[in-house]
Amino acid sequence: MIRVVKGDRDTCLSFIEELKTRVGETEKSVEETVSDILKKVKSGGDEAVKAYSRKFDGWTPETLELSRTEMKELSKDCDPSFLESLRRAAANIREFHARQKQQSRIDPMGNGVITGQRVRGLHRVGVYVPGGTAGYPSSVLMNVIPAQVAEVGEIIMVTPPGRTGKPDPNILAAALVAGVDRVFLMGGAQAVAALAYGTESVPKVDKIVGPGNIFVATAKKQLYGVVDIDMIAGPSEILIVADDSANPEYLAADLMSQAEHDRLASAILITNSEQLAAETVKALYRQVETLSRKEIIEASLDRFGAVIVCESMEQAVEFANDLAPEHLEVCCQDPFEYLGRLDNAGSVFLGHYSPEPLGDYFAGANHVLPTGGTARFFSPLSVDDFIKKSSFIYYPKEELLKAADDIIRLAETEELTAHANSIRVRKEL
Amino acid sequence: MIRVVKGDRDTCLSFIEELKTRVGETEKSVEETVSDILKKVKSGGDEAVKAYSRKFDGWTPETLELSRTEMKELSKDCDPSFLESLRRAAANIREFHARQKQQSRIDPMGNGVITGQRVRGLHRVGVYVPGGTAGYPSSVLMNVIPAQVAEVGEIIMVTPPGRTGKPDPNILAAALVAGVDRVFLMGGAQAVAALAYGTESVPKVDKIVGPGNIFVATAKKQLYGVVDIDMIAGPSEILIVADDSANPEYLAADLMSQAEHDRLASAILITNSEQLAAETVKALYRQVETLSRKEIIEASLDRFGAVIVCESMEQAVEFANDLAPEHLEVCCQDPFEYLGRLDNAGSVFLGHYSPEPLGDYFAGANHVLPTGGTARFFSPLSVDDFIKKSSFIYYPKEELLKAADDIIRLAETEELTAHANSIRVRKEL
Repeated sequence: MIRVVKGDRDTCLSFIEELKTRVGETEKSVEETVSDILKKVKSGGDEAVKAYSRKFDGWTPETLELSRTEMKELSKDCDPSFLESLRRAAANIREFHARQKQQSRIDPMGNGVITGQRVRGLHRVGVYVPGGTAGYPSSVLMNVIPAQVAEVGEIIMVTPPGRTGKPDPNILAAALVAGVDRVFLMGGAQAVAALAYGTESVPKVDKIVGPGNIFVATAKKQLYGVVDIDMIAGPSEILIVADDSANPEYLAADLMSQAEHDRLASAILITNSEQLAAETVKALYRQVETLSRKEIIEASLDRFGAVIVCESMEQAVEFANDLAPEHLEVCCQDPFEYLGRLDNAGSVFLGHYSPEPLGDYFAGANHVLPTGGTARFFSPLSVDDFIKKSSFIYYPKEELLKAADDIIRLAETEELTAHANSIRVRKEL
Repeated sequence: MIRVVKGDRDTCLSFIEELKTRVGETEKSVEETVSDILKKVKSGGDEAVKAYSRKFDGWTPETLELSRTEMKELSKDCDPSFLESLRRAAANIREFHARQKQQSRIDPMGNGVITGQRVRGLHRVGVYVPGGTAGYPSSVLMNVIPAQVAEVGEIIMVTPPGRTGKPDPNILAAALVAGVDRVFLMGGAQAVAALAYGTESVPKVDKIVGPGNIFVATAKKQLYGVVDIDMIAGPSEILIVADDSANPEYLAADLMSQAEHDRLASAILITNSEQLAAETVKALYRQVETLSRKEIIEASLDRFGAVIVCESMEQAVEFANDLAPEHLEVCCQDPFEYLGRLDNAGSVFLGHYSPEPLGDYFAGANHVLPTGGTARFFSPLSVDDFIKKSSFIYYPKEELLKAADDIIRLAETEELTAHANSIRVRKEL
């Protein structure tokens, strides 16, 4: 079910290189289908969206928008205790993200010069929520709350109508808890296109976030620049760094909590303890029998799971930085000692009682994280992803004149004489 | 030389729609050439880079890296007064960007729960600097200083060797002033590929920034995800919003300072004063005769220049927000009154003595700005572009147990039973 590798630094590193090659390329046919859908929706508007809904979802709503009343009515079908759990999670998420908020700033100098940076929430954002079992209420919270904290003007959720024409009540409940302003029943590349270009009934947005299938992801990628998009998420992954203080039952459970997402998910344990490695594997075999998604777990652990027994915890840290995982659990005696040494990770889970699902659902940090080693340069979804910044400058006449010679010299060295002229006319006229 | 449009709101808005359609698509042949170069450099390393340098630049350096000694030696050829101007500009840029720096934070709760966000500079960044007259020392400062303020581990500059094998001394001087760590003499898509994949002599970077021709831009776009990249810059643009307090000579000079960049540059004036519009056009005809880049200025004003006379300053603000320009000059009596109303702009220049070249070179705000209306959702290049964030969480056992039922309920509602199991084993074992 899972490979166990034990060896020196080079053996481990070459095995890690192998583990990294996991992501394929988008098929050309998908690229072309999506590009065609985008063009048709751009020119055809609502009717084109509805035609695609009919084709792909087997159903078309009469009006694309779900009214506020319908939304509230439908969401009543959700379990009250689930709703309470959702509200507690949302409160934690809101609190965590509120601390990320950047303020506009102004830097007035003593000489009358003023520079600064204005920070504002985006005007309008679209959040894609997949249909069926791929649509998670927790993801609604994670995508919508940072936008709301950023003071985005209007947050629009889109989700496929499904064959019943009724979206999941739990999704709608999450939308209400998170603060979605409007909901449109449409999915796929056509929904992404409608958000990016706008139609008669769908207002044009400035950014589109949220997970989706390959058609949704490809549509977002193709529309990048027309609108902003979030990271394109690859398959999910966890890396656990553990020393001999760790509980193998916990490690096995955490590896499987990641592996259950899909057959491409990756779950890796790195430890310096051969005994812990062996006991974790034993626990995996035992626990998996009790789990409903056994088949998926076995398939993903089989292909992308690994237990690496390295020579020291220093090596474990080195390998973790090389892998740059989405989720990184530090199941060690002194977890905070590792915080500074672990350089690349989307989200870090410290200690024996901070398992990844705590972060996925409840602790407040975002669960939309960089995958596939991109934690080297990408960051968790945050309030920063829903703002725009504008810099501004103001110079009084006398200060511009003091700077004039420098600016003219720099512009003329770059042979941009009209730039120099713009300063010169202010000196002379 | 420049179109003048006067009319009601609808006339102006439909003219503005027309002005927006300026950017074309990358030719398929460029896409394919670049994709081929990337593959060859990925497998062939240094030798492949050198072969392309020989082919495209007509010259190959023996070693791709320029030594620190050579760098210092060559930069001595630059004019001392230019160097001083560069240093004063760099000091302003450093001061402006230092205020952008985000700190790591920790949020320890009373119950022992800890959440937080660690902020770090990227490990290694590549800065592309075009060869010949397209390589601007000011752009070296604007791309390198934010990276340095972000505490990026290593900043690598690449620039084409040119036929003499010697880069511009002014560029090297700017690199030294800004704080570049290493310089490699290579250009084009092959340089971008070498930075993204790494070669025997070029270390792999985490992000590539800086302007370049269509091959460089296409290479960056294709490698997005392997590394992070900055915005793909479109043609430059200025929008001036002016009331009757403005000086037409200044406005004409500022429009031309943008128009001189290239034939695709756009320069637009919006005012409610017909007289100011007429006088600005007159000044344009007069001043252009004195400028060395007259031909380019006339060509770009001809195609992408415009003077729009609207009915009120409220309309001017509305049109400016619709255009979302890269540079926005507010040449009005009370410029700060407009700061809150102008929603979308890369950089805002307030008042009669804050012309765009002041920002391009000297005031300290970044001159790498979103173009083509993307100021709706993109921001100026900043320290934020050179950091990575990791969130972290720590829960003590008793707090996890308090949250356990909520997490289990949320996970089970989403049918992710292995997630629930990860919490359950900690309750039970």
